[in-house]
Amino acid sequence: MSDAVRAIWKELEALPQRNLNDLFEDDARIAALSGRIEWEVADDMVKALGGDATSGVLFDWSKTHLDDALMSGFEKLAHARDFTGNRDAMFDGEKVNNTEGRAATHTAQRGVGNEAYVEEAEALHLRMKMLVEAIHEGALGPVKHLIHIGIGGSALGPALAIDALTRDLALVDVHVVSNIDGVALEQAFAACDPATTMVAIASKTFTTIETMTNAASALKWLGEGGVDDTYGRVVALTANPEAAVEWGVDETRVLPFSETVGGRYSLWSSIGFPVALAVGWDEFAQFLAGARAVDLHFQSTEGRENLPLRAAFADQYYTRLRGCQTRAVFAYDERLGLFPDYLQQLEMESNGKSVTSAGERVDGPTAPITWGGVGTDAQHAVFQLLHQGTHLIPVDFIASIAPGDDLDPAHHRILLTNCFAQGAALMAGQASEDGARNFEGDRPSATMLCDDLDAATLGALIAFHEHRTFANAVLMGINPFDQFGVELGKQMANSIDAGGQSFDASTEALLAAAGLS
Amino acid sequence: MSDAVRAIWKELEALPQRNLNDLFEDDARIAALSGRIEWEVADDMVKALGGDATSGVLFDWSKTHLDDALMSGFEKLAHARDFTGNRDAMFDGEKVNNTEGRAATHTAQRGVGNEAYVEEAEALHLRMKMLVEAIHEGALGPVKHLIHIGIGGSALGPALAIDALTRDLALVDVHVVSNIDGVALEQAFAACDPATTMVAIASKTFTTIETMTNAASALKWLGEGGVDDTYGRVVALTANPEAAVEWGVDETRVLPFSETVGGRYSLWSSIGFPVALAVGWDEFAQFLAGARAVDLHFQSTEGRENLPLRAAFADQYYTRLRGCQTRAVFAYDERLGLFPDYLQQLEMESNGKSVTSAGERVDGPTAPITWGGVGTDAQHAVFQLLHQGTHLIPVDFIASIAPGDDLDPAHHRILLTNCFAQGAALMAGQASEDGARNFEGDRPSATMLCDDLDAATLGALIAFHEHRTFANAVLMGINPFDQFGVELGKQMANSIDAGGQSFDASTEALLAAAGLS
Repeated sequence: MSDAVRAIWKELEALPQRNLNDLFEDDARIAALSGRIEWEVADDMVKALGGDATSGVLFDWSKTHLDDALMSGFEKLAHARDFTGNRDAMFDGEKVNNTEGRAATHTAQRGVGNEAYVEEAEALHLRMKMLVEAIHEGALGPVKHLIHIGIGGSALGPALAIDALTRDLALVDVHVVSNIDGVALEQAFAACDPATTMVAIASKTFTTIETMTNAASALKWLGEGGVDDTYGRVVALTANPEAAVEWGVDETRVLPFSETVGGRYSLWSSIGFPVALAVGWDEFAQFLAGARAVDLHFQSTEGRENLPLRAAFADQYYTRLRGCQTRAVFAYDERLGLFPDYLQQLEMESNGKSVTSAGERVDGPTAPITWGGVGTDAQHAVFQLLHQGTHLIPVDFIASIAPGDDLDPAHHRILLTNCFAQGAALMAGQASEDGARNFEGDRPSATMLCDDLDAATLGALIAFHEHRTFANAVLMGINPFDQFGVELGKQMANSIDAGGQSFDASTEALLAAAGLS
Repeated sequence: MSDAVRAIWKELEALPQRNLNDLFEDDARIAALSGRIEWEVADDMVKALGGDATSGVLFDWSKTHLDDALMSGFEKLAHARDFTGNRDAMFDGEKVNNTEGRAATHTAQRGVGNEAYVEEAEALHLRMKMLVEAIHEGALGPVKHLIHIGIGGSALGPALAIDALTRDLALVDVHVVSNIDGVALEQAFAACDPATTMVAIASKTFTTIETMTNAASALKWLGEGGVDDTYGRVVALTANPEAAVEWGVDETRVLPFSETVGGRYSLWSSIGFPVALAVGWDEFAQFLAGARAVDLHFQSTEGRENLPLRAAFADQYYTRLRGCQTRAVFAYDERLGLFPDYLQQLEMESNGKSVTSAGERVDGPTAPITWGGVGTDAQHAVFQLLHQGTHLIPVDFIASIAPGDDLDPAHHRILLTNCFAQGAALMAGQASEDGARNFEGDRPSATMLCDDLDAATLGALIAFHEHRTFANAVLMGINPFDQFGVELGKQMANSIDAGGQSFDASTEALLAAAGLS
């Protein structure tokens, strides 16, 4: 940490800690801390019927402790950390993932950034589109089910997007299988007919042990189910196409993506194949377009007006100045049930580090633990602690103005009023003489209110969090694009499997109890 | 906090902070910090085939920082907090939920504790068994599906148990619906045929707004689906049977449970009806029996040998002496995918408080945030932060020696070796000159290794955590059985719905944006 950065943190620490309810005495607060990101609605039908020509998301950060003084301080920090330079370097395709000597080109998948990477992404998307449409048109025979095999970044994105976007209709029934536990794969088998099932194998390296083991078992199942050419049913999604071909996948069904697309940033690439297959290409294109709108905002907006950066200001404030080890996200929408899981990986794997991008020990906390759930369910499970526990937890709420259901409008009205009421209650509190009934209040939250939860909006929400994560990394001076922390466990598992080594007494005892030593 | 308690904490704070790897120089460590809880296997067939007569769970706490000095200190703390007296008071049916003037009788549901409560529970179980068996025998016509409507404690337990225990076979296909978001209910509708569907309404008070709104919509759906007597398809699970009858449920299909059974402790009561319907009564009885084995252990074992109490020692150590705001649980078993969600409610709603049971402000942190996921998936998502992040996170691993799948044994072997390898790697670490590849180690974990994951084992795992939660509450001097923290949000939502009041500018702006003001 440079002296300049250290001095700015000192200034930030010295600012008075204000109560949220007092901050609301400023009438300009909403204007200063709420903002929308918008995009044009693609659906001509909607426009013809007089619907809104634009759609978007409102980002209301007013119920956080950010005020003018804090934001000014964080703007200085951003300047000292060369936020603009780092951001532009990412878009320009420079090797911002310095430990692995790679660029980070997920925005190029959305058509934003370095031209060469954008062109490459477009070509690979075209290849993917042709295969998706060929399958929809029946060129590969009847395909009713897809078993998508991948783990981590190759699974969480597809699972989230399919769960969010196919409640009403899925063109192909997709089952995402990630766990090495055979129970997961067996569950997919039980729901699929081998005669009409394809298998997608998603692995950046095409060596992930869970994925390759599951793939072998899936092919065996196809064969036992009467499929003659089991390899003929496989699509490979990988940054290592040679390995896929060598494994036995026909080159025409290998959908490559660039090595510069990180696993947890790969949903936009051919890892999105199961999504496109389930929702259709046009919807997938909308998904990319929503993310693109956020890219353009992030790329061209400076200081506190940059909404992902503003969110990172609040994140840094709570993590470093208020000692918060967690941040919670509650989606008041059943369709976003997997969003907290997705964010967990994005934020914790990106910024759960102890060293700067220069390899030096950081001098403060890095990524908090992201956790959360779905509202209103979570109100009846964990909100007790949010309101009356001893740990301060910054909360994000996400909701959609347009309902996802066709039932009595009471359902959606109660859903939204509960969402807004929780943010209000956390902040306001309620004093009581009776300790057990006392609410301190002054507990922060942010609200992301979507016009509708369609493919574009989901793309925008994810891209917002990608950039928020990047902004946090820049403010901390760390590299969000590597993940060496997952290597040691893998290595140990391989050592155990190979045998002949000895481990600590506890691990030895566990292996013996399980009959594995 | 009494002076005696304060003095013990001072002693605990003064103990040297030792490295886990050093603690393992003690050869007696495994014996001192590992223990099993066992029960007799009920299945005569298993015994006839020469299988084990007992089954159980190994609780290995040796990779936590507990040592003899810490455990001695915590035993003193338990004594100063009258752990024995508090525990016995709970089993004896005294009003340990002092703020609500109620006993906490979940163990009576398992046949342990106050005789009058045990007898009451047996009578109510008999009533439930008769209805379950009548449905299985077709007395209410063909029943293929059950839509179980409840939220929080009325939903998480049934959802967990059904997901864990019916992978191979469900006697009735159960859909648990909790969210007020109509998308949740519509998803259940899409999977059910009104002609063969029953609806269970689970609400302790029979007034929960989500549940009653969903119930009304479900009855409407039955009616629109051609069912004449829609109320004739309803079963009510409630501690307020009068309200259920008044709402329209026939008295013969009201399954009451005692008011002294807390919502998050209610899975053992008639809230378990959907579980019994899906797995059959004998299996449900096994579920209770597994919990009972843990009750008997907890009731009759003193000091550090009491395994839930020992776990609470570690929990208090990390929360108070190491500043950990979270604890993570990773089930290396696809069938326990909902276990972290279940524990979140159990632990955070019980102990996420700021006052003692006497109503005084606590002077330290209470419940940490419980979070987690499923292994091996989580390794590819959040383990980066566990290994290399700046926050210390005590981790619990859960695994089963017997596989849940019938695929190539490689699946289960790799699953278990990964589980054990992660605990070993977190503790051992691996020094590297290259900062990005350095692992500090000395990161704690506990492992719960089950012989098999059957109904009895699931019951035992849940009961273990109930008692661990209770033990933590006693060590902190708080009441784990109330939850006033959820009231203010409800109240605010009602105020918004009623209209006429004004809220903070942010909440007003959100309501306006959503067309609700």
